[in-house]
Amino acid sequence: MGVGNEYGLRFGRLEKGERNLITDVPGVTVGHRTLSEGKIQTGVTAIVPHPGNCFREKCPAAIHIINGFGKSAGMMQVQELGTLETPILLTNTLSVGTASTALIRYMLEGNPDIGVTTGTVNPLVLECNDGRLNDIRGLHVGEEHIFDALRAASADFEEGAVGAGTGMCCYGLKGGIGSASRIVPIGGTDYTLGTLLLTNFGALRDLTVCCQPVGRELADRPLPDQGSVIVITATDLPLSSRQLGRVARRAQNGLARTGTITGTGSGEVVVCFSTANKISHYPEGPVTRAEYLHEDYIDTVFRAVGECVEESVISSLLHAKTTPDTAPIIRTLTEYLNRF
Amino acid sequence: MGVGNEYGLRFGRLEKGERNLITDVPGVTVGHRTLSEGKIQTGVTAIVPHPGNCFREKCPAAIHIINGFGKSAGMMQVQELGTLETPILLTNTLSVGTASTALIRYMLEGNPDIGVTTGTVNPLVLECNDGRLNDIRGLHVGEEHIFDALRAASADFEEGAVGAGTGMCCYGLKGGIGSASRIVPIGGTDYTLGTLLLTNFGALRDLTVCCQPVGRELADRPLPDQGSVIVITATDLPLSSRQLGRVARRAQNGLARTGTITGTGSGEVVVCFSTANKISHYPEGPVTRAEYLHEDYIDTVFRAVGECVEESVISSLLHAKTTPDTAPIIRTLTEYLNRF
Amino acid sequence: MGVGNEYGLRFGRLEKGERNLITDVPGVTVGHRTLSEGKIQTGVTAIVPHPGNCFREKCPAAIHIINGFGKSAGMMQVQELGTLETPILLTNTLSVGTASTALIRYMLEGNPDIGVTTGTVNPLVLECNDGRLNDIRGLHVGEEHIFDALRAASADFEEGAVGAGTGMCCYGLKGGIGSASRIVPIGGTDYTLGTLLLTNFGALRDLTVCCQPVGRELADRPLPDQGSVIVITATDLPLSSRQLGRVARRAQNGLARTGTITGTGSGEVVVCFSTANKISHYPEGPVTRAEYLHEDYIDTVFRAVGECVEESVISSLLHAKTTPDTAPIIRTLTEYLNRF
Amino acid sequence: MGVGNEYGLRFGRLEKGERNLITDVPGVTVGHRTLSEGKIQTGVTAIVPHPGNCFREKCPAAIHIINGFGKSAGMMQVQELGTLETPILLTNTLSVGTASTALIRYMLEGNPDIGVTTGTVNPLVLECNDGRLNDIRGLHVGEEHIFDALRAASADFEEGAVGAGTGMCCYGLKGGIGSASRIVPIGGTDYTLGTLLLTNFGALRDLTVCCQPVGRELADRPLPDQGSVIVITATDLPLSSRQLGRVARRAQNGLARTGTITGTGSGEVVVCFSTANKISHYPEGPVTRAEYLHEDYIDTVFRAVGECVEESVISSLLHAKTTPDTAPIIRTLTEYLNRF
Repeated sequence: MGVGNEYGLRFGRLEKGERNLITDVPGVTVGHRTLSEGKIQTGVTAIVPHPGNCFREKCPAAIHIINGFGKSAGMMQVQELGTLETPILLTNTLSVGTASTALIRYMLEGNPDIGVTTGTVNPLVLECNDGRLNDIRGLHVGEEHIFDALRAASADFEEGAVGAGTGMCCYGLKGGIGSASRIVPIGGTDYTLGTLLLTNFGALRDLTVCCQPVGRELADRPLPDQGSVIVITATDLPLSSRQLGRVARRAQNGLARTGTITGTGSGEVVVCFSTANKISHYPEGPVTRAEYLHEDYIDTVFRAVGECVEESVISSLLHAKTTPDTAPIIRTLTEYLNRF
Repeated sequence: MGVGNEYGLRFGRLEKGERNLITDVPGVTVGHRTLSEGKIQTGVTAIVPHPGNCFREKCPAAIHIINGFGKSAGMMQVQELGTLETPILLTNTLSVGTASTALIRYMLEGNPDIGVTTGTVNPLVLECNDGRLNDIRGLHVGEEHIFDALRAASADFEEGAVGAGTGMCCYGLKGGIGSASRIVPIGGTDYTLGTLLLTNFGALRDLTVCCQPVGRELADRPLPDQGSVIVITATDLPLSSRQLGRVARRAQNGLARTGTITGTGSGEVVVCFSTANKISHYPEGPVTRAEYLHEDYIDTVFRAVGECVEESVISSLLHAKTTPDTAPIIRTLTEYLNRF
Repeated sequence: MGVGNEYGLRFGRLEKGERNLITDVPGVTVGHRTLSEGKIQTGVTAIVPHPGNCFREKCPAAIHIINGFGKSAGMMQVQELGTLETPILLTNTLSVGTASTALIRYMLEGNPDIGVTTGTVNPLVLECNDGRLNDIRGLHVGEEHIFDALRAASADFEEGAVGAGTGMCCYGLKGGIGSASRIVPIGGTDYTLGTLLLTNFGALRDLTVCCQPVGRELADRPLPDQGSVIVITATDLPLSSRQLGRVARRAQNGLARTGTITGTGSGEVVVCFSTANKISHYPEGPVTRAEYLHEDYIDTVFRAVGECVEESVISSLLHAKTTPDTAPIIRTLTEYLNRF
Repeated sequence: MGVGNEYGLRFGRLEKGERNLITDVPGVTVGHRTLSEGKIQTGVTAIVPHPGNCFREKCPAAIHIINGFGKSAGMMQVQELGTLETPILLTNTLSVGTASTALIRYMLEGNPDIGVTTGTVNPLVLECNDGRLNDIRGLHVGEEHIFDALRAASADFEEGAVGAGTGMCCYGLKGGIGSASRIVPIGGTDYTLGTLLLTNFGALRDLTVCCQPVGRELADRPLPDQGSVIVITATDLPLSSRQLGRVARRAQNGLARTGTITGTGSGEVVVCFSTANKISHYPEGPVTRAEYLHEDYIDTVFRAVGECVEESVISSLLHAKTTPDTAPIIRTLTEYLNRF
């Protein structure tokens, strides 16, 4: 769906993908499970990297930590081996443990060899703190909600205050899930890069929308920069884990252009994976062939990730509706913009 | 009680602490919960850094990842902020999620402000894969077992096949929990450094005990190097998180001297914390005073950590008794040595 | 000094220091040596962290590498020990070796103990490639030019195409040296943070000046993002090397807001040092006292570095005059802006 | 020619290469330039990764820093891009600048495009401090000595107190250059891995030779652990830069088994490169094919690097002859061993 047409917004210069969502990358699907009832305003979002068995066919991947004040789990092995072997889960900070256990169960079910004739599995679960709108101490996310999100995964998905984004606040406004995509034309081939963000960061006065410092007008007083942001980047470009790490390090450019100072308390983690060059858990032989983009052609990929991340932040704000019962506390960007 | 007197073993040249355990560092306690019944051979070990409120009085800390093929959780925030704010839990790989959730509940109970008037909490949970002796797919560790381990924490604790060490194998033998300590005399003050290891790594043929390549004699054939090792290091030396990171990076020296090649599948994580210079969650003012060791005096600390880690590995082997029902599969080092 | 008053520019919301230069941090001085004659368009810039003996009284410091396609030297030891023990030199890429050797000679002269009764010294030399405007293959920087720059160090210094900035291009325009400073009020004390940049990066079409995408209007066609940028950050805030690293990682926010995609070929290194809590090479005893800012108060520092870096980039562009003989090739931002 | 036959030493269990030198890796050559006259006891060693144009055909490479108290230069770009584009130089600490400049001149001569129609070049120069035996403050290494070492590169080369090793001390004895190699049989193919070390670290009392703690017998009193060590690892195995980094991180195992505590003042850097899958500076198209070892087969490589590094340390000691005029100060291991 993408964002901003109604406000004439344009982020960067590359062409958008068909849906302007991370699921424009072929095979990638996203599912939500929203928990929204009274004080419970939280949920789960699952990003499934490809339709096959993620454990048997791993994706090259990389992690970049912009600011490590966060409780996400599963990053170490991705950094060591350069591979992603499960769907990626997003949820609230205190539900990472439950989500990890549920994701393990999900993987065990599909892989009877795990823990018996082969090693264990590395669940990747990332989080933001939705404690301002959600009763986070209640630990309301259960394992069944994780399975629901995984089962719901589809190429079409909602943005805004849904799934893991239900209780998130971004730039003092309602945040949540935002996504965008870009076509990356290299050597006559149209590749795709897409991002999905869980936005829960920033102070209203800093908000910059498409080079316009709207926060200065919207905020009557400075407030602290709280919360975090998770960035998931997918692409079908043939990139090594080292190169995916370079792409991940450019996500900060997109975030910065929305105005943030990257506050001390922000857990900012970028995951970047490719659906090309999958690595088999059970190799046919000791040596594997792969194709990689030459570094001379990578700048367009760097441009794409910056544009997608910036647009995803604003998209999360524009799609987010006020979470029921919390309206008096946190308003939406749309509501603000419509006043002008 | 330390190791090796019956075999005349001596690791390095520094003086040992009173118990020759990590709990020689004043205030540090350790508790186990062992699950040993039939196919269930697993457990939990808790290291409590000090008797106060760990969230309100954080310890300077650092993490070093020797090899990241592992699923430990909570490391990112320790690396960013240089602080430890919970007890440390050790358990099996697939129980990290459950342990994280239980540790969160434990911290919530002691801190009603978490998630309400202050941020969330970062549970540190480390793991090895005990799938060779334990039905790891059964996810048998429950939240109550975590609480048991935390409640059991004491200055005296068992080594060997107990707690998280119940189902671990090391150098093809029964492994588990090993610990050691050293006195570090600097400038007229006797500081203490201690280590506790969860050992689950190595191939028998590589085993080196106190500079003796006993593995070459014990192993009739080469076997793959499997599994992992977790190293917890505690000290009362006034070290910054940067300095603790330097100490952590020397743990590999101690491991190497027991013969390992650091196999690809080994999750090797070192946590290092100090009980000096605690950092208040609620500061009295913007500027805090602290004392730090000058780098010119740090070499004895480096020597201590190497000696402790090497001794802890062998101590885990010498203390480990054969796990019930698994005797025919994995033997103990003591049994081997007694044959000679 | 500072920038942009003539164009009504304002970067962020914090108060500027008196000079709006890095030298607003008490004790910090900067000196240039410009080589500008025909095809030789290069030079040296020296940042002297304090007026004392930098080897005997080291500054806490940190390094962050945004993109490592560069040839700067001396970073490893700063990262390990968290200290800066020499002035910092900036020059062209192929002159790093000469500058390192000259800086060593300079330090040897002031410290007869180096290499005799104590260890060696770690020269920190950073660079950008001025090959578009300078005959870089000629290696025209000599050791005497380094000494000139060091001797010229003063609280007042020029910005623009001077010193190491002589031959630099930024966003397709004349770049070079830019600087800015901010007052950081914490707990009733006014601290100062300042930055000095060597700018040689970006593509004109991407240039964003103070939230205005002027590049889109100035550039008739897209050109590759080439070159690099070096960021030096100084402060009198009592920050540990870990905290200085956190400050350094926020420099990317300021760069991003000027429009860059952080191109693959850009060597982007951030050095951050504090003049508080100096560390003696010869300690009085094993334990040193220090004061540190509590993390809860660090967000204003993060805001300051982002504002300073963004302003320094634009300041380098606005101060840069066309390098003689190169006018037809690379124009200045002022020239462009005056056309509108 | 390898070490230890006269003393019956055997390091590990893998088969040695033909020469038991790093030059057993096809195409790798090594050259020395020794400066030994009176107080001048220093030199240069060049490792040339392949006989072609190293800038046009880059080697996949990785760097691991064990302890960063050192002044080596050129590592940043290897870490970012995963490639080596020059020969590697070893020399004394204060001559890194001169060596960098000379290596740049060498590369400029062979590549007229550098700095004109393409970017600059990244010289990799590593160092140890030979100030105990050499007048290091005299900066006696000149650019011509660098060219001499590069020209001298050959498959046959000396170990011991030659080239950069001339003035080095290791474990309180004469150190210098040591090398070893191993055959790595994987999937029916015999690959080769070799290491070359510049040894200048350790305290005599800690010295362990092939699992024998000979240092305890040789040293009458403890002395500080001073100095550094550089490890160069070459292989013809098809390893990615990520995998080469994993190999590099195992070098510490070999060092540790010789007894070191990795002293605070030690600059310990590991460079690891592969001669397989060279990367063209001027690519034929955007996508390159490559072959990579599957991670399941990498453990033998990890074993090989540990064995080679351990043997290289001892080989440097056994080959080192007393540097003229310094005999009374630093003895050799051979001299010690012959007394027993």
